[in-house]
Amino acid sequence: MIKVGIVGGTGYTGAELLRLLSQHPDVEIVVVTSRSKQGVLISEIFPNLRGHMQHVFTSLDIEHLVNCDVVFFATPHGVAQSLVPEVLAKGIKVIDLSADFRIRDIETWEHWYNQRHIAPELAKIAVYGLPEVNRNKIRHANLVACAGCYPTSIQIGLLPLLASRSISTGDIIANSASGVSGAGRQANISNLLSEVGDSFKAYAGSGHRHLPEIEQGLSDIAGKAVTVTFVPHLLPISRGIHSTIYTRLNDLNVDVQSIFEEHYKEEAFVHVLPPGSHPETRSVRGSNFCHIAVHQPGNDGRVVVFVTEDNLTKGASGQAIQCMNLMFNLPEESGLAFPGLLP
Amino acid sequence: MIKVGIVGGTGYTGAELLRLLSQHPDVEIVVVTSRSKQGVLISEIFPNLRGHMQHVFTSLDIEHLVNCDVVFFATPHGVAQSLVPEVLAKGIKVIDLSADFRIRDIETWEHWYNQRHIAPELAKIAVYGLPEVNRNKIRHANLVACAGCYPTSIQIGLLPLLASRSISTGDIIANSASGVSGAGRQANISNLLSEVGDSFKAYAGSGHRHLPEIEQGLSDIAGKAVTVTFVPHLLPISRGIHSTIYTRLNDLNVDVQSIFEEHYKEEAFVHVLPPGSHPETRSVRGSNFCHIAVHQPGNDGRVVVFVTEDNLTKGASGQAIQCMNLMFNLPEESGLAFPGLLP
Amino acid sequence: MIKVGIVGGTGYTGAELLRLLSQHPDVEIVVVTSRSKQGVLISEIFPNLRGHMQHVFTSLDIEHLVNCDVVFFATPHGVAQSLVPEVLAKGIKVIDLSADFRIRDIETWEHWYNQRHIAPELAKIAVYGLPEVNRNKIRHANLVACAGCYPTSIQIGLLPLLASRSISTGDIIANSASGVSGAGRQANISNLLSEVGDSFKAYAGSGHRHLPEIEQGLSDIAGKAVTVTFVPHLLPISRGIHSTIYTRLNDLNVDVQSIFEEHYKEEAFVHVLPPGSHPETRSVRGSNFCHIAVHQPGNDGRVVVFVTEDNLTKGASGQAIQCMNLMFNLPEESGLAFPGLLP
Amino acid sequence: MIKVGIVGGTGYTGAELLRLLSQHPDVEIVVVTSRSKQGVLISEIFPNLRGHMQHVFTSLDIEHLVNCDVVFFATPHGVAQSLVPEVLAKGIKVIDLSADFRIRDIETWEHWYNQRHIAPELAKIAVYGLPEVNRNKIRHANLVACAGCYPTSIQIGLLPLLASRSISTGDIIANSASGVSGAGRQANISNLLSEVGDSFKAYAGSGHRHLPEIEQGLSDIAGKAVTVTFVPHLLPISRGIHSTIYTRLNDLNVDVQSIFEEHYKEEAFVHVLPPGSHPETRSVRGSNFCHIAVHQPGNDGRVVVFVTEDNLTKGASGQAIQCMNLMFNLPEESGLAFPGLLP
Repeated sequence: MIKVGIVGGTGYTGAELLRLLSQHPDVEIVVVTSRSKQGVLISEIFPNLRGHMQHVFTSLDIEHLVNCDVVFFATPHGVAQSLVPEVLAKGIKVIDLSADFRIRDIETWEHWYNQRHIAPELAKIAVYGLPEVNRNKIRHANLVACAGCYPTSIQIGLLPLLASRSISTGDIIANSASGVSGAGRQANISNLLSEVGDSFKAYAGSGHRHLPEIEQGLSDIAGKAVTVTFVPHLLPISRGIHSTIYTRLNDLNVDVQSIFEEHYKEEAFVHVLPPGSHPETRSVRGSNFCHIAVHQPGNDGRVVVFVTEDNLTKGASGQAIQCMNLMFNLPEESGLAFPGLLP
Repeated sequence: MIKVGIVGGTGYTGAELLRLLSQHPDVEIVVVTSRSKQGVLISEIFPNLRGHMQHVFTSLDIEHLVNCDVVFFATPHGVAQSLVPEVLAKGIKVIDLSADFRIRDIETWEHWYNQRHIAPELAKIAVYGLPEVNRNKIRHANLVACAGCYPTSIQIGLLPLLASRSISTGDIIANSASGVSGAGRQANISNLLSEVGDSFKAYAGSGHRHLPEIEQGLSDIAGKAVTVTFVPHLLPISRGIHSTIYTRLNDLNVDVQSIFEEHYKEEAFVHVLPPGSHPETRSVRGSNFCHIAVHQPGNDGRVVVFVTEDNLTKGASGQAIQCMNLMFNLPEESGLAFPGLLP
Repeated sequence: MIKVGIVGGTGYTGAELLRLLSQHPDVEIVVVTSRSKQGVLISEIFPNLRGHMQHVFTSLDIEHLVNCDVVFFATPHGVAQSLVPEVLAKGIKVIDLSADFRIRDIETWEHWYNQRHIAPELAKIAVYGLPEVNRNKIRHANLVACAGCYPTSIQIGLLPLLASRSISTGDIIANSASGVSGAGRQANISNLLSEVGDSFKAYAGSGHRHLPEIEQGLSDIAGKAVTVTFVPHLLPISRGIHSTIYTRLNDLNVDVQSIFEEHYKEEAFVHVLPPGSHPETRSVRGSNFCHIAVHQPGNDGRVVVFVTEDNLTKGASGQAIQCMNLMFNLPEESGLAFPGLLP
Repeated sequence: MIKVGIVGGTGYTGAELLRLLSQHPDVEIVVVTSRSKQGVLISEIFPNLRGHMQHVFTSLDIEHLVNCDVVFFATPHGVAQSLVPEVLAKGIKVIDLSADFRIRDIETWEHWYNQRHIAPELAKIAVYGLPEVNRNKIRHANLVACAGCYPTSIQIGLLPLLASRSISTGDIIANSASGVSGAGRQANISNLLSEVGDSFKAYAGSGHRHLPEIEQGLSDIAGKAVTVTFVPHLLPISRGIHSTIYTRLNDLNVDVQSIFEEHYKEEAFVHVLPPGSHPETRSVRGSNFCHIAVHQPGNDGRVVVFVTEDNLTKGASGQAIQCMNLMFNLPEESGLAFPGLLP
């Protein structure tokens, strides 16, 4: 059994880690920390876990983590960078779900997150946790920086086109929409049901923190600089991301459907739907799957890719566990193979 | 034109007052206060009012209110009682939407609201703002304590039965459900969309603050003590209250449908639906109307009354304006006669 | 491996059987029938099953079922009764999710379902599929009539009180609310999102088909006739049932919390929450668990029980699989032990 | 008083016409037809209108329309073209909310709607009902073909840029999302709450019927051919359209915010929000207003325009009444000036 610690267990990615890891056949949850809820039963905060976990939240003390094989950080940005060096020094692997180690260029990170980075050397050695792109590196990593929710959907939606050099890298628009759980479990008027329920809007129209991660990831895939216009929107649902990606083929005669099917035929968690399909967020709700469909609405080379995922699962905690499975030489689908909750 | 001031304009009952009063043909909004948003354009906080109001939130200063004919308090409990005496002393009428003056028995109020009441003498002279019960007193009132959202639906659902002495007063259950806006516009994890969306639960199962108001109001109507079991529930919608009231007839031969139709035939805002109907919250969404239906599921005297209202309109701000219309001798429906937003 | 057939695979209880059985470690799905979708890939209709099932819907032909050990009927009422005799005659066990065999009194069934019953002798021998009440009979049954969604929540909410003779049997109100999936996957204006979304209403106020099942089940538990006032409501969500049950203690000194905890301490799928709790539908979303809390809002013997379940899981397909596990001597939790999807 | 007839009163655009016209100070509703609901009280189908209308649905008989000054067609496509010639011949004005007369090129219409057009000569003379573009022609029209819901949002979002020749006409993407009421009030599995609630997806990814209307309208504005990539999405709400429009400036130095503010400064129903804003559908819910914001996320000339409207109001019935006001020389805001329902 892999001994697991979770730092920051009261947020939504923490809750999702707990839901998934409590059922993982090869995992024993050793410790779950929380600054605000020390001593409280986890199942009191997340009653769905009643009967599945008897744990109590503990304080964040490095001594609590020393018996772990791996520690997940499900914390706001800025926290992991202050603790990870010490954890790694104890020989414990780390999977960080926050943005702390996703961006290699520290100035870029400091610009978008508006603070000094404390552990820039780790940002350079962290392995980017997107298994469909980086599987082998993840297997040997001690520090994985899990891909963000929007960036996962956009990279998976463009990977076959960029890897096959089928599109130009200068004409990409990613129009995405996310459920509200992506904003975290914070007391905040702007995410009240009465504010965002029964409504829809764009946000961060002039630039979102995930943009540099998206461009870095796509550039890595393409082997050259890729620029993107990225606009996120807020859906009146809790879970789910849908990205609608607009790009243009270099060659009108290429068979785009085949490029996607071929690229993903061995991937456990990425399904390319038949031509004419429209993936829906509910089909992957609560699961680690991505659904993709590709359309060509005109005869002018325009390609539109639809990608759906659950932002808390494939977009965060499920992906983190997929990385853990790789790091510990388990079957990649271990604990993650169940279907989405439909209806 | 009636000159109106609103104290506490950034909550949901404030927003609803602004929506309604900005269209009222006989009202001029003079001042809207906010502690947290002084100097901010109202239409920046509530963009639906863009083009309808040019006002800016001001500080809460008695000098700002002196030109008003009437001041609405749309504040958390405890605020109005500290300011109303001074406002009344200036000869300005007051309509309080909070709970400060609803309960005549001060000990009861202090027990449920867990604080000292500063103006107990006003609680005794305040007129209870439920026009269907108290119309004439409201006409002559200087201080109206608007009925609460749940209590409005429950009193309107029982008024014809109690007034006609058709039911016993010791066997009443009020099972109610409210949209989340009833909990106010506060930064609070428990009202995030990701907490209450796509879910349903009861709350305050061992006792809710509206219980003493409900029992006081029903006792006033019945002319004797009425006790109620009241259980509120939280709906995954913003607006709307539905009360399902269970009681028992004294006389099995009474024609309950007629009692309701007869009682409300002159009421502008209460519609008794035809036999067999089931009122829905959406039919009164955004309107000042109540819809009622009465069922008798067995032959044993059991009566079930369904009542729907919009908690922010008939349950709060619409009712407050209905009271204002009475206090200023305007037609009771003035500014309130439009239908609900369906679908 | 148990060989399973599903008759009626395109409705919501069919979809839920497929979601659950596709992951059940001891089950092989042999055949899934559909009148309207023969030859269509199941994963085309339910894309969440893509990658989990390669099956195609087949016609409903008894020859397709002969290799099964057990057949689930997930059909509208009236269908199972016309086919089950033949299936049983082949030595195949049957688990019926419809209402066909739930009511022993055929006249009552014919009254509420407004048609002749074709197989009344089977209604008499069918075992009622509510394991918490009927576990041993289910183990030896060849025909199980699964408990309905509302009746499951109400019987589980009252079982400890009736079994302990703590309440009178003549003063019970069950005020329930269900997600829209309970109405089935039928083309019907009244269940469009634009009709029932963002709204709430009661329905069947003068009597619902589940009433005789509820009263039969409670009477069986109590050993004497129990009558209930039952009023269902429609929630603007897909999944989830919440029942609020009002009854009255015979003895004010009884410890109600202990009665519930004691009664359910060995039950895998029923959790009694701590005093003061309020179960929510989301905590059991997609799971086979029931959450219960008990309140006593006054000092007058009034007891209020809150019960939540997922109407498609514990209220239908999960419960059917729980019955199957019993009938085939598997661990009762097999394939059902995972937690609800929260948030 | 203008005497109004409504053909097709049981759909959502019919319901919205009734809600709005029942409150219009200058309108008398004379007749409302329905094939399926003849003789039924309108307020039985739309209970929000109880107390606001005593009308009964009548059969569609030209004799019922002869006393009207204007007839609205709120019918599925194909119906208006079969009746409008006769209505116009009686000297009655017609406002068609369907797609029958929106497309001047009949072959294009027949291609997308897959049927023969019966009245092609009327399609040529019909005036396109988008007042912000066509105000003067509408004033003198006898037949107005109201702009579609998506096309309204997209044309209003691009009008200032095209009119000022600020963008190229070959690089436009309109990524739109609509509430489910846009799909009409039809019995259809795919619009059940349990299918589209708590989910999000694109649809018509390879081409939507509104595309030719959008391109015709934009080309009219630009004075030359405009091509668009248009992808609609389905929101889990009833009302609301949000369009996110991507285009590119010809000249990087142009002040885009000023272009919009200047263009719309006299428009009653179009509000350009301050720089940095993100319009939300709820701010215009139930109202005839459009909210617009403009962003420039890079320094490369990329412009992103956000537009929100209520698809049933400004996107259909409100706009139809705005056209009626123009045709009858009433103030353009008559009956339409109230704010959106927020929260």
